[in-house]
Amino acid sequence: MIDIKINDELSINDENFMVIAGPCAVESEDQVIDIAKNLKKIGVNVLRGGAYKPRTCPDSFQGLGEEGLKLLVKAREETGMSIITEVMDTETLPLVEEYSDIIQIGSRNSQNFSLLKAVSKYNKPVLLKRGFGNTINELIGSSKYLSMNGNNKIILVERGIRTFETTTRFTLDVSAVPVLHEKTEYPVIIDPSHPAGVNRYVEPLAMAGAAAGSDGLIIEVHNNPGNALSDSAQQLSIPQFKNLYDKIKMITNMNNKNLV
Amino acid sequence: MIDIKINDELSINDENFMVIAGPCAVESEDQVIDIAKNLKKIGVNVLRGGAYKPRTCPDSFQGLGEEGLKLLVKAREETGMSIITEVMDTETLPLVEEYSDIIQIGSRNSQNFSLLKAVSKYNKPVLLKRGFGNTINELIGSSKYLSMNGNNKIILVERGIRTFETTTRFTLDVSAVPVLHEKTEYPVIIDPSHPAGVNRYVEPLAMAGAAAGSDGLIIEVHNNPGNALSDSAQQLSIPQFKNLYDKIKMITNMNNKNLV
Amino acid sequence: MIDIKINDELSINDENFMVIAGPCAVESEDQVIDIAKNLKKIGVNVLRGGAYKPRTCPDSFQGLGEEGLKLLVKAREETGMSIITEVMDTETLPLVEEYSDIIQIGSRNSQNFSLLKAVSKYNKPVLLKRGFGNTINELIGSSKYLSMNGNNKIILVERGIRTFETTTRFTLDVSAVPVLHEKTEYPVIIDPSHPAGVNRYVEPLAMAGAAAGSDGLIIEVHNNPGNALSDSAQQLSIPQFKNLYDKIKMITNMNNKNLV
Amino acid sequence: MIDIKINDELSINDENFMVIAGPCAVESEDQVIDIAKNLKKIGVNVLRGGAYKPRTCPDSFQGLGEEGLKLLVKAREETGMSIITEVMDTETLPLVEEYSDIIQIGSRNSQNFSLLKAVSKYNKPVLLKRGFGNTINELIGSSKYLSMNGNNKIILVERGIRTFETTTRFTLDVSAVPVLHEKTEYPVIIDPSHPAGVNRYVEPLAMAGAAAGSDGLIIEVHNNPGNALSDSAQQLSIPQFKNLYDKIKMITNMNNKNLV
Repeated sequence: MIDIKINDELSINDENFMVIAGPCAVESEDQVIDIAKNLKKIGVNVLRGGAYKPRTCPDSFQGLGEEGLKLLVKAREETGMSIITEVMDTETLPLVEEYSDIIQIGSRNSQNFSLLKAVSKYNKPVLLKRGFGNTINELIGSSKYLSMNGNNKIILVERGIRTFETTTRFTLDVSAVPVLHEKTEYPVIIDPSHPAGVNRYVEPLAMAGAAAGSDGLIIEVHNNPGNALSDSAQQLSIPQFKNLYDKIKMITNMNNKNLV
Repeated sequence: MIDIKINDELSINDENFMVIAGPCAVESEDQVIDIAKNLKKIGVNVLRGGAYKPRTCPDSFQGLGEEGLKLLVKAREETGMSIITEVMDTETLPLVEEYSDIIQIGSRNSQNFSLLKAVSKYNKPVLLKRGFGNTINELIGSSKYLSMNGNNKIILVERGIRTFETTTRFTLDVSAVPVLHEKTEYPVIIDPSHPAGVNRYVEPLAMAGAAAGSDGLIIEVHNNPGNALSDSAQQLSIPQFKNLYDKIKMITNMNNKNLV
Repeated sequence: MIDIKINDELSINDENFMVIAGPCAVESEDQVIDIAKNLKKIGVNVLRGGAYKPRTCPDSFQGLGEEGLKLLVKAREETGMSIITEVMDTETLPLVEEYSDIIQIGSRNSQNFSLLKAVSKYNKPVLLKRGFGNTINELIGSSKYLSMNGNNKIILVERGIRTFETTTRFTLDVSAVPVLHEKTEYPVIIDPSHPAGVNRYVEPLAMAGAAAGSDGLIIEVHNNPGNALSDSAQQLSIPQFKNLYDKIKMITNMNNKNLV
Repeated sequence: MIDIKINDELSINDENFMVIAGPCAVESEDQVIDIAKNLKKIGVNVLRGGAYKPRTCPDSFQGLGEEGLKLLVKAREETGMSIITEVMDTETLPLVEEYSDIIQIGSRNSQNFSLLKAVSKYNKPVLLKRGFGNTINELIGSSKYLSMNGNNKIILVERGIRTFETTTRFTLDVSAVPVLHEKTEYPVIIDPSHPAGVNRYVEPLAMAGAAAGSDGLIIEVHNNPGNALSDSAQQLSIPQFKNLYDKIKMITNMNNKNLV
């Protein structure tokens, strides 16, 4: 597997299992700093948070934009965590690239080939989510756009696909972990929050993903889930996340991996 | 239903059933002009053709770009047809908008909200394809981005969704026609070519779409399908299309619609 | 295509488009006789009606059983229509075979291989529905069980498959018509009622199926849909069906087929 | 959770994680006895093996029938293991019930309501697989048929559902574990073999299922997978299974469960 350095101290690779956590959206300075400090104390080294939000309808909260990016940077300064945030278009790509340590491509842009080509010109770690309507082979096709200019710092994410089942928001395709490991050299991480749709299913999906051999997790955590401005139902509270983190540690111990 | 004027003579509305046809990709001047002349002779008034092609892998033919747009314009000048072509990003949107009579949003960009917002600033007819992993309600959500600045000249397209069935490329969801008619005021047209995947299934799907009450069709036609640079298997030859067009006319006659 | 004789006067074959109609379930003598007489007057020659009902939960109405079969026979005597009803198990197969002119295998039993083998021992027309979770190739596999003892009087039915779309009950896979025609010699008919889920979508799906080249339709019709004991929402009223029947006639005229 | 006694010494319940293993089909005395002895030595207490096989086409191997049942009984006598085998119809149900310790309902019969009703009349443990086209709520509906006469010794199995992804045979819906635990009191076990389709994906899916909180696993194991008469590709060899079993033990230790 490719060894991807996030910063001087932090890598995702064969030996390191990386947990990324944070709110669905950056909402305010208080919110993001409070969440970051709590996560850092638990042991998390990478903070996620959306500044530009892809929402199904235009009247939903669209994110704070550049202000959100700046709040993420502030959280990084206060905690030493690395940060990751989603880029939605080539216009804001230079900003996102400048502020963020990892560039995230969301599920709805997984086959936005113009965006993928633009991102490929930077030499920065990229986290590429599988489109919820895309096959594993299409995800690999999209990764080839990202690597077409030589950047191979690509982290692939399984985050659930569309199926006929309606008790969960999406169906986590946990078999994507061994299939992607067989077909690519990239780390594969699991997003248990979006398929779960509600926070009480996040833990079992996270555990399943870790046990299936994934190289990390990206989990939505909020300091006040009930009042979150987006995806309120699926975000874990800090104590729920703490509890999950301890269980993940048992899996990574079992697998002789470092939890980073 | 909203009445959408394409040019001074051509509208899609309650009375007019519009057939759009042309090659998957613009490949050369000879190719596009020859196809356009043949289609015009048959009765088609809107020519489709891709200048920017969204391809699963970066090493597939990506389209001729601006040169392709110029060839479409040449075809318009020679035949009087209107033209439609797909826009893939905000960088090329001004060009596409300048050259094309209808702006097409492809299936993979159906939830590219940044692109939808940018397109919404123009006052031009837009053809919005359903993402193959998207629900009908999500397609309606995307249409709200397009109309957020007051443009309601939106044509919705059902082009097949992802299912477990593998004998066809996608599964045409023909029920999208009555559902969209119930939930929106926009014309709904059917793309039979992409779900079929092979040209021998295009006719039955086109007929199904017309009989289900759609307001038009968008069909891939090539003057030499065997040598097409993209989606070779699913493009109709000119004689195959001529044959289909005659049958569509019987349906539109039956429904007291003008075939335009 | 195989020519399947239902009785001395009635066949489904290359020239005849057969409409089967009737209530979801046989509920009472008054109900089934009234519906049958109305349908016969409109032109329908085959009456459907469930005596044994496969219901998701055991506390739902399970059908009248043998009494239902006898009521269907009474309707046949009063109208001269042929009758079709679903068989759910080998125990009741001899009864169903004795009373009914066509044996129906429902979607949930499409891969009940023991039942298929038992039915194959009779030399009677069989209508085999596609399982909503089955591929077209699996449907063909099931048809091979039915024909293993030499009976080739098999009518295949596309009735919608499970997909992620939720505005309809199932997604009608209209492309099954050309695919099955290519791969088998059996007539293919469309059930528009189950995918629609609500009666206002039945007509466009029926029209789509007829225009796609199917060899018939099987449609749920009730004389009092609002009070039906099962699948109330998707049954057409008699006047709705009459209206649809007239439109189907236009399609069969267009295709030079006899509407039987 | 309901405590289900398989025999005097063996239960599946809140404290016990049960592994069921054995060949897809019983093929010969040598085969089944050899596999049983090997599995028993590793620690497995329940032997699976098909005597009646539901195959998509009638010319595939259909199982040894009653002879297969007798060979399973012989394996039980020689090893002390409990046995489980699939019932396909009411005709053979009395035999299966007589010979087997657990009655298995396969995926294709998950909504064979006549069979479910017949099985409900016995007071024996039943393992009910989810139909690959069925929702979780439908699986629960089917369990209500099984319990309608008071038997609540029901084990539910998630074994993969039909989706658009083709790199695996089915998509394991691991979220069925927490959803079923929330909605029912029955143990939930995972079948990793059928979704995997090939043996190299079985281990990650089994681990995912165990970590997600399932109450057991049912795994296909063969002493000579390359020559198996059915589902050859997905069966583990004895050494592969031994390796997996050791890893499962680590998960059950972690969860303070007994591996039985």
